[in-house]
Amino acid sequence: MSDAHSGPPAEIIEADLTWTGDRFASGVQVAIGPDARIRAVGPLGPPPTRRLRGQALLPGLVNVHSHAFQIGLRGRGERFPTGQGNFWTWREAMYELVDALQPDRFRTLAKNAFREMRDAGITTVGEFHYFHHATTERDYDLDMILLEAAAEARIRLVLLSTHYQTGGFGKPLDAGQRRFDTRSPHEFWKSIDRLSPGLEPDIQTIGVAAHSVRAVPLEAIAELRDEASDRNLVFHIHVEEQPREIEDCVDIHGRRPMALLNDALAIDDRVTAIHCTHTASDDMRCFLERGGNVCICPLTEANLGDGIADVPAIHNSNAICLGTDSNARISMTEEMRWLEYAQRLKSQQRGVVTDADGKTAAALLDIATVNGARALGVNAGLIAPGLWADFVALDLSAPVLNEPDEATLLGAWVFGTGNEAVAATCVGGDWLPSRPTDMANAQSKNSH
Amino acid sequence: MSDAHSGPPAEIIEADLTWTGDRFASGVQVAIGPDARIRAVGPLGPPPTRRLRGQALLPGLVNVHSHAFQIGLRGRGERFPTGQGNFWTWREAMYELVDALQPDRFRTLAKNAFREMRDAGITTVGEFHYFHHATTERDYDLDMILLEAAAEARIRLVLLSTHYQTGGFGKPLDAGQRRFDTRSPHEFWKSIDRLSPGLEPDIQTIGVAAHSVRAVPLEAIAELRDEASDRNLVFHIHVEEQPREIEDCVDIHGRRPMALLNDALAIDDRVTAIHCTHTASDDMRCFLERGGNVCICPLTEANLGDGIADVPAIHNSNAICLGTDSNARISMTEEMRWLEYAQRLKSQQRGVVTDADGKTAAALLDIATVNGARALGVNAGLIAPGLWADFVALDLSAPVLNEPDEATLLGAWVFGTGNEAVAATCVGGDWLPSRPTDMANAQSKNSH
Repeated sequence: MSDAHSGPPAEIIEADLTWTGDRFASGVQVAIGPDARIRAVGPLGPPPTRRLRGQALLPGLVNVHSHAFQIGLRGRGERFPTGQGNFWTWREAMYELVDALQPDRFRTLAKNAFREMRDAGITTVGEFHYFHHATTERDYDLDMILLEAAAEARIRLVLLSTHYQTGGFGKPLDAGQRRFDTRSPHEFWKSIDRLSPGLEPDIQTIGVAAHSVRAVPLEAIAELRDEASDRNLVFHIHVEEQPREIEDCVDIHGRRPMALLNDALAIDDRVTAIHCTHTASDDMRCFLERGGNVCICPLTEANLGDGIADVPAIHNSNAICLGTDSNARISMTEEMRWLEYAQRLKSQQRGVVTDADGKTAAALLDIATVNGARALGVNAGLIAPGLWADFVALDLSAPVLNEPDEATLLGAWVFGTGNEAVAATCVGGDWLPSRPTDMANAQSKNSH
Repeated sequence: MSDAHSGPPAEIIEADLTWTGDRFASGVQVAIGPDARIRAVGPLGPPPTRRLRGQALLPGLVNVHSHAFQIGLRGRGERFPTGQGNFWTWREAMYELVDALQPDRFRTLAKNAFREMRDAGITTVGEFHYFHHATTERDYDLDMILLEAAAEARIRLVLLSTHYQTGGFGKPLDAGQRRFDTRSPHEFWKSIDRLSPGLEPDIQTIGVAAHSVRAVPLEAIAELRDEASDRNLVFHIHVEEQPREIEDCVDIHGRRPMALLNDALAIDDRVTAIHCTHTASDDMRCFLERGGNVCICPLTEANLGDGIADVPAIHNSNAICLGTDSNARISMTEEMRWLEYAQRLKSQQRGVVTDADGKTAAALLDIATVNGARALGVNAGLIAPGLWADFVALDLSAPVLNEPDEATLLGAWVFGTGNEAVAATCVGGDWLPSRPTDMANAQSKNSH
């Protein structure tokens, strides 16, 4: 037991099994203070105030990279009447969605996505938010709506407010991109300063993103990164998801995007590069040696046909985190296993992403929790004193877990389930049950 | 409306939306006869006897290739203490499971797998059953237990009784393989004749499998195929899942397995080759031209690190069906999307598996229904007169479907969900609700 604060705890919870960082143990109590942080973990003595019977407690999952509104494309954009599509034809469909999206519908989509994330065990999301304006007038009203939608879904949010300035290297914005326009770093920071008082205390923070080297001039990227550093904010950027972006960059700058960023930016563990699907190994090594994080989005990168990143090198630096990105499907267990499975398909070897003991599921859990929390600058990702009381509780009787024991539970959950085993999530001490598909109710509606 | 039989129907069902083969329509009634087959489909006039409010009706999913007992490996075999593993190290773990498995546990695992399949919308399973004996005495008692487990789970079963004779090309069985031994084709057919009276009427049928070219001598494979043809039984065989099997075959026979089979066997649409991950394009073309089916198992082939098959060629021949194989995860929607996604990762193009209209989800649904039913020789896979009354009903209010309409529903289900939207399944007119994870109950157990 370790005691981080004084005064009585607000709550002591105890599940049948609790993840201790490398294994499940029974008899573990977690004390939560009135500040919504974990105060102590261990066999604490006093009876729990909340007993999670038949459940297992894990740190809440951290989703580093989301564009919530893109859930509006779910079930769309999967038809190819003129033959095959690719990332760029998908982007046209996304711009059509953007074009038609009014503030009310934007709010509904964002709230649906955030609520579905909680059903999937996600307690923190990094929203890479570039869709700022309800009109082309640059009024930033969608930023505030996004904060409200996240607060309604009661998910911890890091608003990665995103600078978007050009429609390609040195090109003006396309019509479909005008509602993303943040014009200049100066105007961008003004928008952040206007927005900051609207953050929900304790569960909403700000981070900074430059959309990509194609949407932000290199000097502006460097300026944003410096200011983010001065303000102690995390900094994210899309990097090398598609070969064409790399080719265009080489045409203009004579170098690939990651090489440019390595030279232009102060890289440390506050910087996260999203995707890196086609990053050259030398550029990646340089980025990783300086402490950068890499966010992989397995389901989206597969849906968009991006390709398979060189995960072993990134994993060796303990730099990988995960994002649900386009939210075509929201399941962090599916993201976790397909991070590993894509590598197995590529290398025809099993056990690419493992921890020091050769365990795959434990390594994937760290990636989906500890590493994600670092990339978002959030004190979460472990069940440990001083961190936010963010948890996911699994229903041990869920049929998909197939009668697990302490040794098999984590593997069964990561490799064997979607969201079916998630009983509830807790964000800063605030519990929310996962929504059943309400079969009993659906059945009773059938007249016979 | 078309009327296939006389006499009054046993039941008329109507869902809000019904899949008509290429789209969802409302106002469609489905009449089911007392013979458990669909009698008529259309706007039939009389009020439905079962109204599926808030639900969509689709043909039940067909899982062509399963080894039910391997669900016992879920959460296991994902640790690599001495470095990376591969298919062959996984097979050692599977043999350890086999070694320890007693009849009662075999029954439980099989029943769990079959019941979970129904939760996932699967109404027919092809069980590629090679694990025959509770001891090494060749008593075939596990065959009868498997039939009983499937009957208890009320799933339609095609028992693909599997001949297993050698421990590798020309080698005796290993210790771990003795409980698979069927000795000779003559003894194998005797076991089938003994077993056949134990089949559950209407929902259980027999098919025949030779395990692989490494486990059955080529002459015996041909003999089995001929007898299967005489008895009008479907014939399945594992083909070219792993490079080493191909290399060993070339060493012994001077040719690759698929080339051998194309020469030795009468290939038609009663023959299904499982996997074909590494099949040469000439061999594949020859197999497809003669009408053979190919069963791809995306989740298992990823989990085992097999590699990515050349799906476009097979899809052009409309020959693909799907299997959950090792049952490490049971979700046909995940199998469907990752059939397409693995190709997108490989080709960096989207829309590889499409129908004539360029629709991906509709093509994947046909693969998971019509094509699977053909490979198993079962009259199912469509909602059409004369076919078995096998359905899956989706809960249209399931949050994961994100407020679908008729146009987006199929895509949202296939690309956006696991098993969360499956409300119930029906096998031969017999409805079974999917099991909720029972969150309400789990919550009420928390004392506070």
